[in-house]
Amino acid sequence: MTDIKTIAAFFRENDNFLILSHASPDGDTVGSAYGLCHALHKMGKKARVECADEIPARYDYMVKPVEIQDFQHENVVAVDVADLKLLGKNNELYGDKIALAIDHHRSNKGYAPITYVNADAGANCENIYELILELGVEIDKVIADNLYTGIVTDTGCFKYQNTTANTHIIASKLIECGANYYEINRIMFDTKSFARLKVEQQAVDNIEMHFDNRCALMTITAEMQSMVTPDELEGVTPIPRQIEGVLIGVTIREKTEGKFKCSVRTHEPIDASEICSMLGGGGHNRAAGCEILGTLDEAKQKMLKAIADYLGE
Amino acid sequence: MTDIKTIAAFFRENDNFLILSHASPDGDTVGSAYGLCHALHKMGKKARVECADEIPARYDYMVKPVEIQDFQHENVVAVDVADLKLLGKNNELYGDKIALAIDHHRSNKGYAPITYVNADAGANCENIYELILELGVEIDKVIADNLYTGIVTDTGCFKYQNTTANTHIIASKLIECGANYYEINRIMFDTKSFARLKVEQQAVDNIEMHFDNRCALMTITAEMQSMVTPDELEGVTPIPRQIEGVLIGVTIREKTEGKFKCSVRTHEPIDASEICSMLGGGGHNRAAGCEILGTLDEAKQKMLKAIADYLGE
Repeated sequence: MTDIKTIAAFFRENDNFLILSHASPDGDTVGSAYGLCHALHKMGKKARVECADEIPARYDYMVKPVEIQDFQHENVVAVDVADLKLLGKNNELYGDKIALAIDHHRSNKGYAPITYVNADAGANCENIYELILELGVEIDKVIADNLYTGIVTDTGCFKYQNTTANTHIIASKLIECGANYYEINRIMFDTKSFARLKVEQQAVDNIEMHFDNRCALMTITAEMQSMVTPDELEGVTPIPRQIEGVLIGVTIREKTEGKFKCSVRTHEPIDASEICSMLGGGGHNRAAGCEILGTLDEAKQKMLKAIADYLGE
Repeated sequence: MTDIKTIAAFFRENDNFLILSHASPDGDTVGSAYGLCHALHKMGKKARVECADEIPARYDYMVKPVEIQDFQHENVVAVDVADLKLLGKNNELYGDKIALAIDHHRSNKGYAPITYVNADAGANCENIYELILELGVEIDKVIADNLYTGIVTDTGCFKYQNTTANTHIIASKLIECGANYYEINRIMFDTKSFARLKVEQQAVDNIEMHFDNRCALMTITAEMQSMVTPDELEGVTPIPRQIEGVLIGVTIREKTEGKFKCSVRTHEPIDASEICSMLGGGGHNRAAGCEILGTLDEAKQKMLKAIADYLGE
């Protein structure tokens, strides 16, 4: 592990950077990559961003760094990437060439010779903010929009436990630098396609309550998913746990015929990862997942059995 | 208008305060009143809070100031109250006795001899924070929870346009003082009763799209409302405008037989108040309302006619 001054020196002393985001990109990895790339351009460096998957259209408001193609990259940098696997198809191309990683996951595998991990940061964009400050680059509106996006998407707009006093200090600075926070939050949190709203409605309609209303179970069939893109379904999984009094929220999503992806979200003191590990999955204390094979009804019964076993009922 | 030093002096030099919240209390007026009352108690002053209506149960996590009853109030203070009418039944009792008003509404009527209005504050709790700082009272966890609640409820958890760089600075300080932000946000934004979820589902089910999908119209009948308390329905009105591409979101709520309350929420450049004023209502550019008499179908037709007239179609 290294400090912010060392990685700032790395950028000052080198040139021709390739910045990698993780696959299935989210606001934090895109914001980190774009923000850093813009800052390097402002320093007169050559840099470009690559991601294994297409950046979802909802992030289109973030100004993409100008694509400078007339250079051979010399230094590969990974941002918000805890594990080489998460690079997707870029792992094969660049996995063994990464010189530097900037991350906020405590679980970072240490795959890069120089690794900066600050796990106290709610979003990796907080780390990029500190780095840009250290580099002495002025944060303009474009960079501010990038970094603000990463912060709000990873902290649930300052709602989640990973938010810190420092997260708010940085948000304050980014607003002063011109971050269009109102529009960003509107697009990230207050905009749904009509199709998504309809799928959500069908999902709520089929919610079943179990274990004296301590468990809510919601199903999303393949047919329902055919009405929307995967990106449009973001934020559906937390719904069952949002119900007052519910300690265990389960979402069962049909992946392909006979294969179901189950997400378990819990409140204290229920351990979601313990429930999912009984079914061959895993995760965190309050959010975990597993895959179940069979019919929808079998998937439900297996999940309810695991919960009953966990509760000792 | 006066400054924060003057109102701090008012509290230092006086005693026996009655603090009034506005009727139909929200997080900001309750947080302002409780936070200020706790701070005055810490100064050794006597103070109590009154509100015309019961504080909704969802705010129960906020520690209510100890009810000191063995004093006659000498100084009546109104917090987050723009207009005496908003005091509800307390207007008759205290409307002409208010010595000091602390508010963040630009529209404050100036009903109090001493009036502090800082309209740049996203929430009035930001003003109370500055006041407590000026009074030299240490902000403990209880006060931090009160003030944080007011800030997040009035700014939509830092999403709305009234959020400022300073709002985030204050949030940062309150987290350092122990505000239980994760729990507060969970209760305020991520908890819905099952009945509420079901009413929401029925409301989404009946959404009609008009004017080439630029307008979404949602209806909440008296029958649907009978399933929930008014407090449980909070946050339903914004749904139609959240639909991608929608510029005019309309919610028609049956108040009593033959009487409908219509809420219009818009995106730029549509002026909601202009639409509602055609129907005898009014409000702000992006959020306005009016009352329509008749059958549900007549209410819909009148609203759609007003929108057609506004659009010139």
